[in-house]
Amino acid sequence: MSNESAAPRKPFRRLLLTGAAGNLGKQLRGALAQWADTVRITDVAPLDAVAAHEEASVVDLADRAAVDALLEGVDAVVHLGGISVDAPFDDLIEANIRGTYNLYAAAQRHGVKRVVFASSNHAIGFHPVTEVLDADSPQRPDSLYGVTKCFGEALSRYYYDRFGIETVCLRIGSSFEEPKNPRMLVTFLSYRDFIELVRCSLFTNRVGHAIVYGVSDNPARWWDNTKVGFLGFRPQDSSAQFADRFPVSAPTAAYDDPAQRFQGGAFVVGEPMERSR
Amino acid sequence: MSNESAAPRKPFRRLLLTGAAGNLGKQLRGALAQWADTVRITDVAPLDAVAAHEEASVVDLADRAAVDALLEGVDAVVHLGGISVDAPFDDLIEANIRGTYNLYAAAQRHGVKRVVFASSNHAIGFHPVTEVLDADSPQRPDSLYGVTKCFGEALSRYYYDRFGIETVCLRIGSSFEEPKNPRMLVTFLSYRDFIELVRCSLFTNRVGHAIVYGVSDNPARWWDNTKVGFLGFRPQDSSAQFADRFPVSAPTAAYDDPAQRFQGGAFVVGEPMERSR
Amino acid sequence: MSNESAAPRKPFRRLLLTGAAGNLGKQLRGALAQWADTVRITDVAPLDAVAAHEEASVVDLADRAAVDALLEGVDAVVHLGGISVDAPFDDLIEANIRGTYNLYAAAQRHGVKRVVFASSNHAIGFHPVTEVLDADSPQRPDSLYGVTKCFGEALSRYYYDRFGIETVCLRIGSSFEEPKNPRMLVTFLSYRDFIELVRCSLFTNRVGHAIVYGVSDNPARWWDNTKVGFLGFRPQDSSAQFADRFPVSAPTAAYDDPAQRFQGGAFVVGEPMERSR
Amino acid sequence: MSNESAAPRKPFRRLLLTGAAGNLGKQLRGALAQWADTVRITDVAPLDAVAAHEEASVVDLADRAAVDALLEGVDAVVHLGGISVDAPFDDLIEANIRGTYNLYAAAQRHGVKRVVFASSNHAIGFHPVTEVLDADSPQRPDSLYGVTKCFGEALSRYYYDRFGIETVCLRIGSSFEEPKNPRMLVTFLSYRDFIELVRCSLFTNRVGHAIVYGVSDNPARWWDNTKVGFLGFRPQDSSAQFADRFPVSAPTAAYDDPAQRFQGGAFVVGEPMERSR
Amino acid sequence: MSNESAAPRKPFRRLLLTGAAGNLGKQLRGALAQWADTVRITDVAPLDAVAAHEEASVVDLADRAAVDALLEGVDAVVHLGGISVDAPFDDLIEANIRGTYNLYAAAQRHGVKRVVFASSNHAIGFHPVTEVLDADSPQRPDSLYGVTKCFGEALSRYYYDRFGIETVCLRIGSSFEEPKNPRMLVTFLSYRDFIELVRCSLFTNRVGHAIVYGVSDNPARWWDNTKVGFLGFRPQDSSAQFADRFPVSAPTAAYDDPAQRFQGGAFVVGEPMERSR
Amino acid sequence: MSNESAAPRKPFRRLLLTGAAGNLGKQLRGALAQWADTVRITDVAPLDAVAAHEEASVVDLADRAAVDALLEGVDAVVHLGGISVDAPFDDLIEANIRGTYNLYAAAQRHGVKRVVFASSNHAIGFHPVTEVLDADSPQRPDSLYGVTKCFGEALSRYYYDRFGIETVCLRIGSSFEEPKNPRMLVTFLSYRDFIELVRCSLFTNRVGHAIVYGVSDNPARWWDNTKVGFLGFRPQDSSAQFADRFPVSAPTAAYDDPAQRFQGGAFVVGEPMERSR
Repeated sequence: MSNESAAPRKPFRRLLLTGAAGNLGKQLRGALAQWADTVRITDVAPLDAVAAHEEASVVDLADRAAVDALLEGVDAVVHLGGISVDAPFDDLIEANIRGTYNLYAAAQRHGVKRVVFASSNHAIGFHPVTEVLDADSPQRPDSLYGVTKCFGEALSRYYYDRFGIETVCLRIGSSFEEPKNPRMLVTFLSYRDFIELVRCSLFTNRVGHAIVYGVSDNPARWWDNTKVGFLGFRPQDSSAQFADRFPVSAPTAAYDDPAQRFQGGAFVVGEPMERSR
Repeated sequence: MSNESAAPRKPFRRLLLTGAAGNLGKQLRGALAQWADTVRITDVAPLDAVAAHEEASVVDLADRAAVDALLEGVDAVVHLGGISVDAPFDDLIEANIRGTYNLYAAAQRHGVKRVVFASSNHAIGFHPVTEVLDADSPQRPDSLYGVTKCFGEALSRYYYDRFGIETVCLRIGSSFEEPKNPRMLVTFLSYRDFIELVRCSLFTNRVGHAIVYGVSDNPARWWDNTKVGFLGFRPQDSSAQFADRFPVSAPTAAYDDPAQRFQGGAFVVGEPMERSR
Repeated sequence: MSNESAAPRKPFRRLLLTGAAGNLGKQLRGALAQWADTVRITDVAPLDAVAAHEEASVVDLADRAAVDALLEGVDAVVHLGGISVDAPFDDLIEANIRGTYNLYAAAQRHGVKRVVFASSNHAIGFHPVTEVLDADSPQRPDSLYGVTKCFGEALSRYYYDRFGIETVCLRIGSSFEEPKNPRMLVTFLSYRDFIELVRCSLFTNRVGHAIVYGVSDNPARWWDNTKVGFLGFRPQDSSAQFADRFPVSAPTAAYDDPAQRFQGGAFVVGEPMERSR
Repeated sequence: MSNESAAPRKPFRRLLLTGAAGNLGKQLRGALAQWADTVRITDVAPLDAVAAHEEASVVDLADRAAVDALLEGVDAVVHLGGISVDAPFDDLIEANIRGTYNLYAAAQRHGVKRVVFASSNHAIGFHPVTEVLDADSPQRPDSLYGVTKCFGEALSRYYYDRFGIETVCLRIGSSFEEPKNPRMLVTFLSYRDFIELVRCSLFTNRVGHAIVYGVSDNPARWWDNTKVGFLGFRPQDSSAQFADRFPVSAPTAAYDDPAQRFQGGAFVVGEPMERSR
Repeated sequence: MSNESAAPRKPFRRLLLTGAAGNLGKQLRGALAQWADTVRITDVAPLDAVAAHEEASVVDLADRAAVDALLEGVDAVVHLGGISVDAPFDDLIEANIRGTYNLYAAAQRHGVKRVVFASSNHAIGFHPVTEVLDADSPQRPDSLYGVTKCFGEALSRYYYDRFGIETVCLRIGSSFEEPKNPRMLVTFLSYRDFIELVRCSLFTNRVGHAIVYGVSDNPARWWDNTKVGFLGFRPQDSSAQFADRFPVSAPTAAYDDPAQRFQGGAFVVGEPMERSR
Repeated sequence: MSNESAAPRKPFRRLLLTGAAGNLGKQLRGALAQWADTVRITDVAPLDAVAAHEEASVVDLADRAAVDALLEGVDAVVHLGGISVDAPFDDLIEANIRGTYNLYAAAQRHGVKRVVFASSNHAIGFHPVTEVLDADSPQRPDSLYGVTKCFGEALSRYYYDRFGIETVCLRIGSSFEEPKNPRMLVTFLSYRDFIELVRCSLFTNRVGHAIVYGVSDNPARWWDNTKVGFLGFRPQDSSAQFADRFPVSAPTAAYDDPAQRFQGGAFVVGEPMERSR
């Protein structure tokens, strides 16, 4: 990779993107190209169509030495890696707990000062759907997966207070091409808004340790980002255009159905999984 | 009344509208037709122009048996009935206290699980005009009428906690064709926004026991609905278009005039009335 | 009744005590004798052992004219009257709603400026036992009885904001000779502390409209009176001395038993009652 | 000055504008002409181009008698006068402390009941840039200048509580033709929005003692005016149009640089100045 | 082990104590004997002086099957096990993350409904010493050890919301025979008060998911347990009796010394450790 | 001054006490002797009975150079100086505004890092007597004197944020030999408790910028020091022993009497004074 002499420098010299082979990782690769001369991309899964400005490597986040190497020469990190659904706890430990620790430990060693961390709405999924949360609402994980996201939020807080590594924790709602069910009319985050949220998280001069909900400007709201207005995130999209996909119906669900009562939806009725060996 | 074979089912089978002969009741009848196969309408006053999909009856809400019959076969209720101005307490007891109790008692017996209850800004009218309220602001009734609305909010809370009957309490501002005085530039709720608010209150899958202010997107705001963002209510109208009806003037009202100091306006200087017999 | 020439005047000329034949009313009669030259006592039930300084009358609080006469020449009121258990709503309307209105309407007419109102913990009984409440906690009535106490709190607020009649609402826990069950180890209010609470409520120079929990200094606490510290109420007793009445046991109650989960205890599983005719 | 017979009266008879020769004072003169028959303008610096409806005088705010004369016959005041940058404390005392006292003392004597007071974001400049403030956030002055603005806020609160003189304290961000540095992308207040904010502050019927942030609808937000929604201030402009003036860059500033960490920017690293004599 | 026929049953049939060989574990063994017929004690270190009512076993908490066996037939758990100082993260993962998960997973399988979990003040050690915290204060771990305690709090919250397993998280201060340094005059928890806190945590009928600070009634306070008053914890001891151990001195520590600025003391300047292999 | 060889060093080398000739200053002189080798005492009034360990000088706080000299070689300051009653604003400017500025400016120049500042309850005297305040309650000065105390709180906050000079602001109630009127039964601060409060303020290792109410453990409370529990201030005295000085009476004061409605008492009805020349 080289920066041609005529090309103006981009704001970042090198950004690291973990989880680059995932759904959201793919969305970001194009945007990151605009913001950094070099984008280091990594995943446990193979990465395709590596561009000239990209440095690709397949890395297991639980591999401390490999993660340490990833952080070499990096300005900032977008950490989407790890397991993003519920899973056996032994797997979650490796990918989301040891992996996130390895990332921050390496960031500290290499003097990296900014991380954008993909937390999740499942860190707060056991709040009822009749409550509006903000950055100060207490964690209410709805699954072991959610618990590991709470761990990531606590760990990054420590690295901020102790070493000044700033993190924006994105409690991402449902970021897909379009909402897939009525719940997602509330939790939908368009790809465009997701990219804008990462942009704000990378470029705002100071972010401290921020908790922001990743959600578009949908008609119904469970999450209020007023307290992180300093990020300048203003979503442009709304789930309203997809509302007619889901036939309007009277609220008929059984009163005690937890999947209807809590923000985490179906996650709240999941069971801890065992690893099949 | 029948559902013709070719007609698709509407979301609700049967909705009950009390206070159907009143100002706001009339506004709702058209909208309810879109949402329910059958709309049962009732009032103490006669109802005119009853449509094919409507079931009309004249009922005194203080008549327990009659109210019980009204709730038979109903999916949800929009409860606008009762007295909506200040009145002798003996009258308010019958219409707003006994009447509202009768409605909830009947709802419980018939398994109805959703009520949209017309509370009023007069439940909080003794807050000063220099304060912005939200769903957690304490009650400050400005009249005996307002006290009965506080009663209705407490009663419906009980029926939610005890029996799971969900209620949206609408603290309605001033819902008329247009604002009639300068205070209404702040409290105006257009008919269109009122109907949308009822729609959100009926169709949101879970509402718990919610307190929402019924107000359009007027320039000046006394009330903030952020905490009930889960209802998805986004007003479309504003009193701004009516601002030039009221000549701009310097703030000349006497400093201690209660009707200018408190949100309830002229209500706060009313006197308890005696029933003329 | 006469004030002998040599006798020094007591702080109050005449106090009115409603509900004087009830359990707590009987406790207060002795104390009131110290504070007022004349104590007017009233109840629907007969009053016995009327002392020289007492004026006794049997009055139904729903009788407006009779209540009006009671307030004549009174300095302040301790309003314990009405129904203090769950009951058919028709009865509660007469005793607790119409009766309390009659009392305040008469107080206004006669210029009485201070009321001590026996509200109840059942106005907030649907809060969970794992939450500590204070004066700003929202109402959560656990019964129709509790709803009428919420009404009394709202009504007295109105009379304060509108007419400057100050009220201390006592959310009384369990005031008996001694705790009768394990729940009462938390909610116990000794008679001595009850009397002291009424004393503070009558003599504090300004009370505005205050919400105070009537509870002794028991080891476990659901209620915190910090916000009404201006009343100077410092309980002297504790349920600790009665703790050994109830054998210590592991927490075995079924997890979902509402009577164990909520502060109101058995009230929260009561059913609205019908008046037997 | 005269009101010609055919001319309709404007809302105010006479407004006083202090600091009329300053940057913001000049912006306001045109607007005030629309709102008042007569505009009395004053400054320590000479005033040019005095219009027919204007009464101009050069006054040192520390001159009690002169200030007293200024308030004669005035309906309301827009107080922009005083020193608006950091300065030796001896100078700040005269202009901002004695001067503001003189203004309020004179307002009281002359029965003036409304003041719009130019406070400053430097009254809260020691809050970090990762915090969103509102009207209840505690003062954190970032300079002696900021301390004198805190004084003005406390003094005006006293005159409100004691004498009913209402004040809107405008915590003005950066009101210039356009943002001059990246910080001003957050703090920018367009002239148009500044004028609108003064208009809302003068014409809202009751304002009590209000704290409002003077800021346009910029993408990133440090300040939230929800609690003063009763003023009806809705900014029309945004710094977004100027964003490309400042090249986007990675957050490279040293982690501990106070001028980057706190809302006051460079003010927070200023030193108290001595008056050169 | 047997319950002799004449012996009255104790409140619990069988309690499990993990970390029984540690400092606090030893303190508890005597108390637990009073509360349970059988006390199952476990540690990774050998246990000495096993009494007749005790069932002892050496278990590594990272061993899922062994932990599962420990929970068999247990009524409630006091979980002091795991690493209680800072340590290499690989070790903390096994003892405090996998170990705590194993404990809760086993508790769920065996229907255990109450856990007393030894969290730590190091979960909030990065709060400044000039702030008073309560149960709602956000986590601010001061070390990787503290991060694993945050994990335990989040995990136990999940098991409460999902499966109804109640946990009291004890954020223990400094529980030793006596304070060892000036900081411990604030954080001291006497053994007697520690035992009482465990007693309250085990016997309170409902605890939900509670956060309580484990601290005696010391003169200076960083932590306020008002919000968990329902536990009935009233400390009997105070560090005041040890105050003269530490010579009074002027506050001379360097202003920026983190170990003096933050509640965690020396922990806040620790460095993540590597496991020496 | 010399420290004899045999004498153990006291915690402070030299403390400065301003306002040493005043009522509270006199109380402190004895205590300070225990805490510092040398106590520099100063006042505008003559100081009598200067002890061997004391350095006395008569200084006008408005004299910058003289104040600068006072701070030379000082470890910490107890700043009681200035005017402590309402007074003409011109006088208050010199003593309380310029004087307090001079003190902090000199403290900064001389590297002094701790000030105990005598603020006053009159900084918050316009809060009603039916409200309980804490360290975060907004300022509500009840007099120009109170406004200058607000200034001192803001100024000291600036010196803390900017230069790390820590201040404890003592909002002193009524510190006299004994209460002089019924209001002082609430606001009484015994001399012993006052001295203890100063001791806590000087010796607590870190205090940041703290707001503490100076009040004994009186039965009725307007002020709650929970948020500054880190100071370790536990009052030992109570006004209860003086209660019988004031005959108990019914609350007869006129409802709208401001001196009864607000915490500041008679101050709230004072008028700004003119300096008689």
